[in-house]
Amino acid sequence: MTDIVTFGETMLRLSPPRGDRLERTGELDVQAGGAESNVAVAAARLGCDAVWLSKLPDSPLGRRVVSELRSHGVRTGIAWDDSGETRMGTYYLEHGGDPRGTNVIYDRSGAAVTTAKPDELPRGAVRNAEVFYTSGITPALSSTLAETTASLLETAQDADTTTAFDLNYRSKLWTPEEAGEKYESLFSHVDVLVGAERDIEACLGRSGDPADVARELADEYDFETAIVTLSDEGSVAVHDGEVYEQGVYAAETFDAIGTGDAFVGGFLANRLDGGDVPSSLAYGAATASLKRTIDGDLAVVTPEEVAAVVEEDADAISR
Amino acid sequence: MTDIVTFGETMLRLSPPRGDRLERTGELDVQAGGAESNVAVAAARLGCDAVWLSKLPDSPLGRRVVSELRSHGVRTGIAWDDSGETRMGTYYLEHGGDPRGTNVIYDRSGAAVTTAKPDELPRGAVRNAEVFYTSGITPALSSTLAETTASLLETAQDADTTTAFDLNYRSKLWTPEEAGEKYESLFSHVDVLVGAERDIEACLGRSGDPADVARELADEYDFETAIVTLSDEGSVAVHDGEVYEQGVYAAETFDAIGTGDAFVGGFLANRLDGGDVPSSLAYGAATASLKRTIDGDLAVVTPEEVAAVVEEDADAISR
Amino acid sequence: MTDIVTFGETMLRLSPPRGDRLERTGELDVQAGGAESNVAVAAARLGCDAVWLSKLPDSPLGRRVVSELRSHGVRTGIAWDDSGETRMGTYYLEHGGDPRGTNVIYDRSGAAVTTAKPDELPRGAVRNAEVFYTSGITPALSSTLAETTASLLETAQDADTTTAFDLNYRSKLWTPEEAGEKYESLFSHVDVLVGAERDIEACLGRSGDPADVARELADEYDFETAIVTLSDEGSVAVHDGEVYEQGVYAAETFDAIGTGDAFVGGFLANRLDGGDVPSSLAYGAATASLKRTIDGDLAVVTPEEVAAVVEEDADAISR
Amino acid sequence: MTDIVTFGETMLRLSPPRGDRLERTGELDVQAGGAESNVAVAAARLGCDAVWLSKLPDSPLGRRVVSELRSHGVRTGIAWDDSGETRMGTYYLEHGGDPRGTNVIYDRSGAAVTTAKPDELPRGAVRNAEVFYTSGITPALSSTLAETTASLLETAQDADTTTAFDLNYRSKLWTPEEAGEKYESLFSHVDVLVGAERDIEACLGRSGDPADVARELADEYDFETAIVTLSDEGSVAVHDGEVYEQGVYAAETFDAIGTGDAFVGGFLANRLDGGDVPSSLAYGAATASLKRTIDGDLAVVTPEEVAAVVEEDADAISR
Amino acid sequence: MTDIVTFGETMLRLSPPRGDRLERTGELDVQAGGAESNVAVAAARLGCDAVWLSKLPDSPLGRRVVSELRSHGVRTGIAWDDSGETRMGTYYLEHGGDPRGTNVIYDRSGAAVTTAKPDELPRGAVRNAEVFYTSGITPALSSTLAETTASLLETAQDADTTTAFDLNYRSKLWTPEEAGEKYESLFSHVDVLVGAERDIEACLGRSGDPADVARELADEYDFETAIVTLSDEGSVAVHDGEVYEQGVYAAETFDAIGTGDAFVGGFLANRLDGGDVPSSLAYGAATASLKRTIDGDLAVVTPEEVAAVVEEDADAISR
Amino acid sequence: MTDIVTFGETMLRLSPPRGDRLERTGELDVQAGGAESNVAVAAARLGCDAVWLSKLPDSPLGRRVVSELRSHGVRTGIAWDDSGETRMGTYYLEHGGDPRGTNVIYDRSGAAVTTAKPDELPRGAVRNAEVFYTSGITPALSSTLAETTASLLETAQDADTTTAFDLNYRSKLWTPEEAGEKYESLFSHVDVLVGAERDIEACLGRSGDPADVARELADEYDFETAIVTLSDEGSVAVHDGEVYEQGVYAAETFDAIGTGDAFVGGFLANRLDGGDVPSSLAYGAATASLKRTIDGDLAVVTPEEVAAVVEEDADAISR
Repeated sequence: MTDIVTFGETMLRLSPPRGDRLERTGELDVQAGGAESNVAVAAARLGCDAVWLSKLPDSPLGRRVVSELRSHGVRTGIAWDDSGETRMGTYYLEHGGDPRGTNVIYDRSGAAVTTAKPDELPRGAVRNAEVFYTSGITPALSSTLAETTASLLETAQDADTTTAFDLNYRSKLWTPEEAGEKYESLFSHVDVLVGAERDIEACLGRSGDPADVARELADEYDFETAIVTLSDEGSVAVHDGEVYEQGVYAAETFDAIGTGDAFVGGFLANRLDGGDVPSSLAYGAATASLKRTIDGDLAVVTPEEVAAVVEEDADAISR
Repeated sequence: MTDIVTFGETMLRLSPPRGDRLERTGELDVQAGGAESNVAVAAARLGCDAVWLSKLPDSPLGRRVVSELRSHGVRTGIAWDDSGETRMGTYYLEHGGDPRGTNVIYDRSGAAVTTAKPDELPRGAVRNAEVFYTSGITPALSSTLAETTASLLETAQDADTTTAFDLNYRSKLWTPEEAGEKYESLFSHVDVLVGAERDIEACLGRSGDPADVARELADEYDFETAIVTLSDEGSVAVHDGEVYEQGVYAAETFDAIGTGDAFVGGFLANRLDGGDVPSSLAYGAATASLKRTIDGDLAVVTPEEVAAVVEEDADAISR
Repeated sequence: MTDIVTFGETMLRLSPPRGDRLERTGELDVQAGGAESNVAVAAARLGCDAVWLSKLPDSPLGRRVVSELRSHGVRTGIAWDDSGETRMGTYYLEHGGDPRGTNVIYDRSGAAVTTAKPDELPRGAVRNAEVFYTSGITPALSSTLAETTASLLETAQDADTTTAFDLNYRSKLWTPEEAGEKYESLFSHVDVLVGAERDIEACLGRSGDPADVARELADEYDFETAIVTLSDEGSVAVHDGEVYEQGVYAAETFDAIGTGDAFVGGFLANRLDGGDVPSSLAYGAATASLKRTIDGDLAVVTPEEVAAVVEEDADAISR
Repeated sequence: MTDIVTFGETMLRLSPPRGDRLERTGELDVQAGGAESNVAVAAARLGCDAVWLSKLPDSPLGRRVVSELRSHGVRTGIAWDDSGETRMGTYYLEHGGDPRGTNVIYDRSGAAVTTAKPDELPRGAVRNAEVFYTSGITPALSSTLAETTASLLETAQDADTTTAFDLNYRSKLWTPEEAGEKYESLFSHVDVLVGAERDIEACLGRSGDPADVARELADEYDFETAIVTLSDEGSVAVHDGEVYEQGVYAAETFDAIGTGDAFVGGFLANRLDGGDVPSSLAYGAATASLKRTIDGDLAVVTPEEVAAVVEEDADAISR
Repeated sequence: MTDIVTFGETMLRLSPPRGDRLERTGELDVQAGGAESNVAVAAARLGCDAVWLSKLPDSPLGRRVVSELRSHGVRTGIAWDDSGETRMGTYYLEHGGDPRGTNVIYDRSGAAVTTAKPDELPRGAVRNAEVFYTSGITPALSSTLAETTASLLETAQDADTTTAFDLNYRSKLWTPEEAGEKYESLFSHVDVLVGAERDIEACLGRSGDPADVARELADEYDFETAIVTLSDEGSVAVHDGEVYEQGVYAAETFDAIGTGDAFVGGFLANRLDGGDVPSSLAYGAATASLKRTIDGDLAVVTPEEVAAVVEEDADAISR
Repeated sequence: MTDIVTFGETMLRLSPPRGDRLERTGELDVQAGGAESNVAVAAARLGCDAVWLSKLPDSPLGRRVVSELRSHGVRTGIAWDDSGETRMGTYYLEHGGDPRGTNVIYDRSGAAVTTAKPDELPRGAVRNAEVFYTSGITPALSSTLAETTASLLETAQDADTTTAFDLNYRSKLWTPEEAGEKYESLFSHVDVLVGAERDIEACLGRSGDPADVARELADEYDFETAIVTLSDEGSVAVHDGEVYEQGVYAAETFDAIGTGDAFVGGFLANRLDGGDVPSSLAYGAATASLKRTIDGDLAVVTPEEVAAVVEEDADAISR
């Protein structure tokens, strides 16, 4: 039985050197990045048997992504598209520094994954997994993907696979109203919800004390666990009616992209390893803090490193 | 009055280091490349006042292309698309070596230029030019562009601007039949035709002695000049009923991409400078041979360098 | 009519990687840098039609500089020196970190520009400009240049072109006394003066409250605008008898070189765009803060980025 | 059932840039390289389910190797050594050019793999494989490894797993006599022998017509297949009493290291896919020729690329 | 007469780019690093005639180290080992950032230096030196080296060469007890002792007020000078019964490795130049602070730079 | 006693990556290069005690050159110029490829060395050397240097130091007539003359059979040895009335710069080691052929590598 299966889009991430700008650069660093594969990599590195499902163009670029994920121990279930009609999604990342923000330019329209139908994917992998994870980015990418996302969540639910979902609202893909409506339609299939405080407010119209928000969501949608992540990157979880708070571990940030995914990957990996919710929140926060020190979307960490952060900073829970 | 105006798509060209492969690379070299801007750069560097027309997304990536072309002295007339609906075309180039071919992966679907309509472009620039150049790639990119290409050629013709057209058949964009039909529909607006022997055979169904082919084409479509480029990269031109042959200048090839465009740019620049057809063929061939020694699509050469090749190799005309 | 014409020396800037030292480095990053072209680039990028005048050796190195400036949209009016008697000025920049200072080694003696006479330069461009800008570096480079600088300022004045001048005292080029004498001889042709507090004290012997200093200078030399920049990089301007103060926008400094030029470029661009003095001071400060985050001498920014800094930090005026 | 299992040492390969020398370089390129993992990578990339067995230090360096192999789809069965007593083998590779030879400096003494005992390795993987492959390097590395190699070959033989063995004589590890004695002691467990003509002569004392040599070896040791590779890199095989000859495919050599392993990997992959010996020889030769164009030990190729070489060069069999 | 002779191991230091991790990196920066050569380089750069003694494999890797040390003006006295039995020690350095620590992986077992016997080394150089320096790393590397270290210290003592010794406890090489015993056995030959507060506590079992600890050590072992370096990197020295305290100079840390060696090198160089203990402590602290801003183990500084730090921060003595 | 002392200018050599062009490059490789230090490095690496004399600016750039030469074991005798009036000579090298030639741009005017007077240099080093070497570049750089060159040659002659001189005519520095006149004025102090066939013809007006030319020169100027190097890079020597011919060793050329200096360095090193003229010619040719495979001006070779070329190609003497 697989520990965790994730489904979503992964792009080639193209970045100029620090201090340089996209509009004059002569060189781009290449890495693979996408919320759901980021989660799979974090989980795999932390000891899980992790599988990432997606659809990719049958090209060196598609294989480039699989190659990088496999190097971290993630197995892949790919619908290879050799139609020549679709492309590899990319995103350009320009590192900033105050007052110049980090700039992300998505170039993902027409990506192969936007045409992925349930039957093209190894649905059995979802059924055999302990956890199935996807994020709110996936249904935003196309109506086909919205249906596929719903279908896979249902498949998981029917198979008693725990489902985890991170809102991951992306304003460049849809409006908060569109997102909120879709999120709510999926919630009946979701066991573990993760959402940023600001996404919850924008898309679900709920604000106030994060613990109250988490409790309300858990109650209304019958989530096993509801986690609200905060703007300072701490988090609050409600699980079985209990509230758990987790502060952030201080980090020198080299690259902030993928921090949230590292949190989710660390949280789920620890849960799968038998951790209780508060220990998993700490494990997720530690994974996220380590991620910040590493170039790229991926949490290239070891279980020992994460454990060391948790143990040395047992009192980092600041709230 | 402008010497030469060109119109077409320019992409970001992304290449891994030599010996590396796209499917594992961690680094991409970035340059601008496109047939018509390659011609404009060659012409500008060789002394022409050259302008490139196109449509680009209003983004750092679009500005990246303009920036590189401007650095070579090309002026640009851009329809900036801030709709967010279109993208920057890119192509991935993996350098090969026998028996592994150089691999080009186009990622140009949905590019801003495919939506370019005549009215968005500075049509006046075409009217004020001595020469207007585009290639057979442009009408292949979209039906909108096919119409725009025809319209701009007509505009040029009406203004007594000399029109030059390189077949540049791309099998990944359309069939030979589609291409041939379109080419023929444009020929009535074309003064100077350039075509590779194999493209002429595939799309126009004409083969045999290159001089005969050139003469037939010139006669049938009333071209002022018809140039057939050969598989060994020599060329044969028919101009005013005369046949001129030009051999290749030997070159150590560092990067073969853009060689044909360098030939056209060198040929037209010399014609604009008052050269007769045989001297312009030599000038084009010399520009092309220098291009081969330089990384990237662009002929980063000086008039002195081109002249030196022509003069030292006066007997290079081997046919 | 051109918005702004600048005149001065631009060098090749050669830098080892961060953390490395010139005396062992195996690699140098190459960029173009010079006060007056830095100002031209900032202005051009912020929407002005900007022209940079200079004299350069007719060599790949001279063309290297023009190429980079053109890539940012600056037009150039160059006296090309093919005598072989002069050279391309360079400067070596070693990035430091406390307690090791950033080290600049000028290698500019014998540069082509030091021989530039007024008649070699497109004096008409100065007459047709809204603003003519040069800095106190230019007259320090040679007696020829000192005369040329005076001559071009006079030309501008005669044509009702607004003249702007930044003291930019360089102790490696001349003494404060020499500089002060020359500055004062030029002030009768200057409309907008920019000077660092410490340069004003060292060369002009004036110190005390910056607003008082600015007012005294404006009164004595009849400057339209007098701007004193402070050691903390804020600024005080006196214009039409009014005093305006501008604080700095906080920035993570990646590369501090060129910050002052970015301030001037931003200030002048905004003035040319119709901004009043306080808004232009803010615009200049914002351009400077963005510059700090970018590698190289040049403010590779967009008008939108500068506006965002100004708007979000409306209360950054800390004095 | 696994297609192919290989066993042996893989090192970190450290190379200075081309044209540079180890004794002054400031930069090393890092890749994984080792005969048996090279074979596994080639086979995996050509469609096999391939597993590499070895022992590695439990460190980032050990994981670096696994990471790279996994990225090509190879699964690994590793005995992780956390004793801190062993190290990661490395080798330094300095690319040459006539008359300066390519220089390899092994730094493999004390490598974890030299302590690998059969019980530490997943012996079941060997039993479940179609093919088990190792080379003559492995038993040369330590007496422990010599025993382990023999033991695994026996295990394979007992399980009816086809065994393949490449002599790969390394003069820096042992004498020809030592090697020859060990080889012969292993031959009773070997089904497919591959040996370079010069190794066979040096270690086994057999020379003369390669076909005769192959036949003699096959007869004496009852090999199913005996392949002699030639100094010009062609090969001769004897299989079921038949002789097959294979020429080389011409290649522009970027990096010759790993060519022999690519040949074996291609040969075995094609055999496993049902190819007969002559077609597998061609497939191996094509894989090797492609490898030559690629940086590193590994044949980063696709089945389509190999097939294209074979098909276009059907008459490359030059002997 | 030589100013200073040092003896010990120097390794190749191999580092991935910042933000990257050893287990996925494709590139390693190469530098030479080792406590005793770091001291020699600092001393040589600050004006001393410095010689480094060691044993190295007779290979490009051994020459790589000598080459780098010589480039800084250090002379070398090397026992070249052409036995092929030993290797070049290396260490892998992965730069960290909170909460991920900088990671050092030693790969020094079997290094040539571990077999260095006194007679292989130019013992006369030790006799002719003003100062002989080695550190507590050297005797920890092998029993042979432990004897050689003792022998060379005796040789120095007999020749009235001042001996300096830095504890430099390395927990990966031996236990505190083993280290403490060895240290104490060497102390009778040591004139100047340097030890980190934490090493003194761990290995020598002495803690408390650093000045008291220094005084006790000086008294018990009759050290001419005893220096205790503190966790905040300040230091306390006892010399001729007087206590001297030195604070740290603030530094932006680019690379902390080698800071302690820079301190020792600066201290000894200033002593050799006639400085008294407090001025030499300041000089050492300044050298160390500059080192922090520079990539690599080595203090690539000039006497002028060190003097500038000391002079500008005369009141940096914060304790 | 020193084996060889050389005197001349060494520059920083700045090169863009292969395939790139100076006028657009963003990166320059830095190395030290100069005829006389090239000879010193070759000789030092081949076992000589070699000293290079020159004058350099007292700056990181000057120290950069000394650092690189020292790394190869060359000792230096430098007149450090801290006047701030002179500069570090540089040269820009753009690698070419047919038909685009390799391009060298000298930027050496005003270099410190042009002001070097005999009394500033360690004249004693010349007296204590077996061989003193300089080339015809040195007297061409300034009239001061012309006098210094003559003075040092005289000093050497008076001390019975063998003097060696390579014409090294540089047309960018002076006319053939000027050069010829100066050469002839120095010949009375020269023992070993090396001259390219074309330089001898251009500057000394002698042509015809190289052996005859060498003999004539040896006779007329009483050279101990006269060596004519040929356009195909072979050489002919006349020594004690005997003629010796040496062919070239075939080489894959990575970088041709410095080949002639490597020849001289190898020749002199072998002579100093007791080789006779024909063996030294072979040794020089082998050193030169190895140099061709190495990036930079310097022959980064070992005695073993040179010997291997000579031995394996004993019949390479093709004439």
